[in-house]
Amino acid sequence: HPGEDDDSALILVSATPCTLLRAVEVLGLARPYHNGSMMVFSYEDRASFKQAGTDKNIQKFLTLAERQYLVTRELESLKTQDETFIPGYPKEKLYQGECIFQSLQKRGFLLKFYPLHNKEELDALAKKWYSQTHFAPQPLGSIHAYFGDTIALYFSFLQFFTFSLVPMAVLGALMYLLSWDSVEKYLLFAVFNVVWSTATLEFWKRRSAAAAYGWGTLLLKSQFEEPRGNYWGPMGVNPITKRREPYYPSWKRKLRICLVSGPIVCVFLGIVILGIGTYLWMEEWVQDYHGRNDTLLSLLVLYMPCFIHTIYICLMNSVYKTIAYALTEWASHKHEQGHTLHIIQHTMKFNFVNCFAAMFYITFCLKDMQLLRKRLVSLLVVSQMINQFTESLLPYLLNKLSFQGGTAGKKDHQDEPTIDRIKSEGDIPTFPGMFDDYMELFVQFGYVSLFSCVFPLTAALLVLNNVIEIRTDALKLCRLYQKPFSSPAANIGVWQIAFEMLGFLSVVTNCFLIGIAPEVTEVSASHGVTSFQLLLFTIVVEHALLVLKTVIAFVIPDEPDWVKLKVAQIEYRSLNALKRK
Amino acid sequence: HPGEDDDSALILVSATPCTLLRAVEVLGLARPYHNGSMMVFSYEDRASFKQAGTDKNIQKFLTLAERQYLVTRELESLKTQDETFIPGYPKEKLYQGECIFQSLQKRGFLLKFYPLHNKEELDALAKKWYSQTHFAPQPLGSIHAYFGDTIALYFSFLQFFTFSLVPMAVLGALMYLLSWDSVEKYLLFAVFNVVWSTATLEFWKRRSAAAAYGWGTLLLKSQFEEPRGNYWGPMGVNPITKRREPYYPSWKRKLRICLVSGPIVCVFLGIVILGIGTYLWMEEWVQDYHGRNDTLLSLLVLYMPCFIHTIYICLMNSVYKTIAYALTEWASHKHEQGHTLHIIQHTMKFNFVNCFAAMFYITFCLKDMQLLRKRLVSLLVVSQMINQFTESLLPYLLNKLSFQGGTAGKKDHQDEPTIDRIKSEGDIPTFPGMFDDYMELFVQFGYVSLFSCVFPLTAALLVLNNVIEIRTDALKLCRLYQKPFSSPAANIGVWQIAFEMLGFLSVVTNCFLIGIAPEVTEVSASHGVTSFQLLLFTIVVEHALLVLKTVIAFVIPDEPDWVKLKVAQIEYRSLNALKRK
Repeated sequence: HPGEDDDSALILVSATPCTLLRAVEVLGLARPYHNGSMMVFSYEDRASFKQAGTDKNIQKFLTLAERQYLVTRELESLKTQDETFIPGYPKEKLYQGECIFQSLQKRGFLLKFYPLHNKEELDALAKKWYSQTHFAPQPLGSIHAYFGDTIALYFSFLQFFTFSLVPMAVLGALMYLLSWDSVEKYLLFAVFNVVWSTATLEFWKRRSAAAAYGWGTLLLKSQFEEPRGNYWGPMGVNPITKRREPYYPSWKRKLRICLVSGPIVCVFLGIVILGIGTYLWMEEWVQDYHGRNDTLLSLLVLYMPCFIHTIYICLMNSVYKTIAYALTEWASHKHEQGHTLHIIQHTMKFNFVNCFAAMFYITFCLKDMQLLRKRLVSLLVVSQMINQFTESLLPYLLNKLSFQGGTAGKKDHQDEPTIDRIKSEGDIPTFPGMFDDYMELFVQFGYVSLFSCVFPLTAALLVLNNVIEIRTDALKLCRLYQKPFSSPAANIGVWQIAFEMLGFLSVVTNCFLIGIAPEVTEVSASHGVTSFQLLLFTIVVEHALLVLKTVIAFVIPDEPDWVKLKVAQIEYRSLNALKRK
Repeated sequence: HPGEDDDSALILVSATPCTLLRAVEVLGLARPYHNGSMMVFSYEDRASFKQAGTDKNIQKFLTLAERQYLVTRELESLKTQDETFIPGYPKEKLYQGECIFQSLQKRGFLLKFYPLHNKEELDALAKKWYSQTHFAPQPLGSIHAYFGDTIALYFSFLQFFTFSLVPMAVLGALMYLLSWDSVEKYLLFAVFNVVWSTATLEFWKRRSAAAAYGWGTLLLKSQFEEPRGNYWGPMGVNPITKRREPYYPSWKRKLRICLVSGPIVCVFLGIVILGIGTYLWMEEWVQDYHGRNDTLLSLLVLYMPCFIHTIYICLMNSVYKTIAYALTEWASHKHEQGHTLHIIQHTMKFNFVNCFAAMFYITFCLKDMQLLRKRLVSLLVVSQMINQFTESLLPYLLNKLSFQGGTAGKKDHQDEPTIDRIKSEGDIPTFPGMFDDYMELFVQFGYVSLFSCVFPLTAALLVLNNVIEIRTDALKLCRLYQKPFSSPAANIGVWQIAFEMLGFLSVVTNCFLIGIAPEVTEVSASHGVTSFQLLLFTIVVEHALLVLKTVIAFVIPDEPDWVKLKVAQIEYRSLNALKRK
């Protein structure tokens, strides 16, 4: 085969421009039309699209990430025509209509499968992205071209979120510095918080819609997906395609999730609650200890329970993640999409309880604002240090270490530097996905929107963290992992919903944090307001803020006006095309 | 012209099967495929669809309502090729690309435009629908075939809603008869109410999705709509189609809505609040009067304020509706859809305040359960009597009256009975739309879900009312109005959202009605529970029920499994068709 190396252990797969263009049409991607606006690509009409007329321009017509995705998609949709065998292996039967690529992966004929880095493009991107010393916005266009939609969306969201934190950070810093302690301050901060969290998420939707329009993915319909490589089950008939293939009924999956995953989750939640109990017991002990011996050491000891509990939380998060992956694999989801959704949902619920349960307990049951503040500070500092260490520094050191060990074997291929480089790319670890990074932002958003009114500096600390985070994430993506696959995406999907749910919860916590704040209760008591009236007032404010939040979310359109207009133009044109036919 | 009568005042418009089939393809309606499942219609592939192969079967392939809609759609999309004049009227210029049909309507050349009844089909439908004396479900299939999607959806919803009220009615009647007064009763009723309202709306979604699949409208995409006949504005360039046409910028419309509609709405709300004030003053006066002279007359007088205020509410609703129509017309919405949405939204908000404001005031400010109960009973009885009278009896009497007056002129055409019938159909009033009927259900749903825990017989009364309502609505549709136009629809649209919002509100009212119910406060006081603790408990229950409601809405899928499977099959087939091409 062309593209095969000497010992047949390596096959380079590529595609002709014609194949790529046909794949774009089937996918339904939109591309720039000759008149400048976007249009859903049609192979027949390819001459009317910018840079699609001639084969030479394919690199300008489709980005590197798009071409790599299309090749993968074509490979994954290859199916056998009839019942057949893998050539040379008469025992390995392939049934009719089986996905060849996924089968080879499952049976171990295909060991690794990865897209290649483009050294020059990567270096140019790295230079613009994280190597410059002054502060500049990220080169999102180049990131999108090189890494694809999902990764560009993450970095775009990270940047947007960091920018949106700035007003919050300024307001918080002012409040902290002026030490303005009054009822109005709390009310102002709570209202600002609700408006901020709603507006941030709504404007992000607009931003991502605008970006997705430019990438041609905004109008992408959900595709018929081929089963995952790891999907297994007894042979049956697929009710949609009417093909014979492994078919694992969904009621069995639900049963497995209920009977096995359910109890395991409960056990883990039990361990989490045990941890919280231990933490609160330790907290009481150190308070007592500090009260008895008021020394510098005892002051240090005062922060130990938080420190230990934070590490415990991080540990539990990563242990649970491993188990969630295993359980999800075992539940045998048919499609990649359902698989990912299941993992995200379950880990998110667990992380939510793990990260916030203790804080909710302190807020609503102990009503100890002092402890809540102390905890928030140590969580912010310690968990971010741990994250930066495990996410970037540790893989970097491991990489350095394995690089030194690997130089000996590398010298054999000095005459074939390309094959050598390709092989070495296969040896570095695969990219674990953006899951952990989104999770970190989710927890950050939780700290800011749920609890920042007890510690106004939260936003400022997070801005500082995220400015560094952008660079470490970029470095790790460019240098520490294989080039990841990236599928077309128009939004951040389930994460948007998760952030919005946090936003609703933030109204509740903010209102009750104010209702039980010592400053507020003191002032109201001095004015002869009973605690009953104060509670009633809190409820009224809470309901008013919930209505305000819903109204804001409704009033801000999900797409900018110009995107709406462009989409209407595309739809009008395709309707006309249908009529002419 | 063929279809024209002697004095050229009447044109009968029809379409050939071929034209209809092409229109179906452009519309994107799904039809039964030869293998029994639904498939988006394609003119090229028409031989594969049931009963579409030959021209003779067009009446079986498309229902009467669908054919009438398609003819209207074709007429409304007729455009001039170049700048031209109306033949015979050199002063009436039509610009290039103007919609001919809408222009003729606007300039008064086209006076009336209505679809015709089919006497035999109508009689058969009437017999099955409302003439039978025993109780039977409505012939929804025939209603859909004859009147089309929107009307079939309304009657389907009315029936579904009435059936779903039955368990509520039984539970309420039991509670009323057993006069079981305890805290548990209230809690049980409130939880049942929340589960009931959520489940009803979710199961309705499934029901309407199943119906829409059968009608072929489930997969219908939103269409590019031609401007309304009454749309006006200075000439401009349409940014979507790039055609020259009247163009009224949307910021001007928004300005008009804010500066003129806004204040008028405020004035009306003021009048409503004035009415509530007067009502409460009257209420106090009659209480006082009854206290002084405890006679049968004073007992009757006791119900007078409610009676008068209910009539006042109905009056205000209909006055406001007239004004809302005029204001919406003046705001010059471009498309029928935006126009209807605007009317519904505004009238709904007003009716909500008008119908429920007094009850909220009584509940939350006066906390007078006795008065609330009295008011609910009189509202239920009086407003429904008024509705039945104005909606059906009055038009029926007017119709009888005009029929007697019209017989004299009818005798001229005795030799042409068909033309005579067609003309007489044009003389009866046009159907005002389902707006008032949905509004009535909206208010009913409000009474049941928001306040029925103070008067458990509410649901039983409403079931009784709706059983009659089905017949009177059917009678009025079949006999009192012109045959209405019906556009394809897959769900009840904005009404679904309105009902769901009422559902959320119902959680709040139910919880607080319980929290302030005299039985509950007495019991809790006797157990040493302070009012502060009771309020706290109410809040916790409220938030728990809101979460429960969201979970129920999330857990029940919006479409039945078989519909999901069929939709996936349709999408898979169209993807394959694209690949083969």
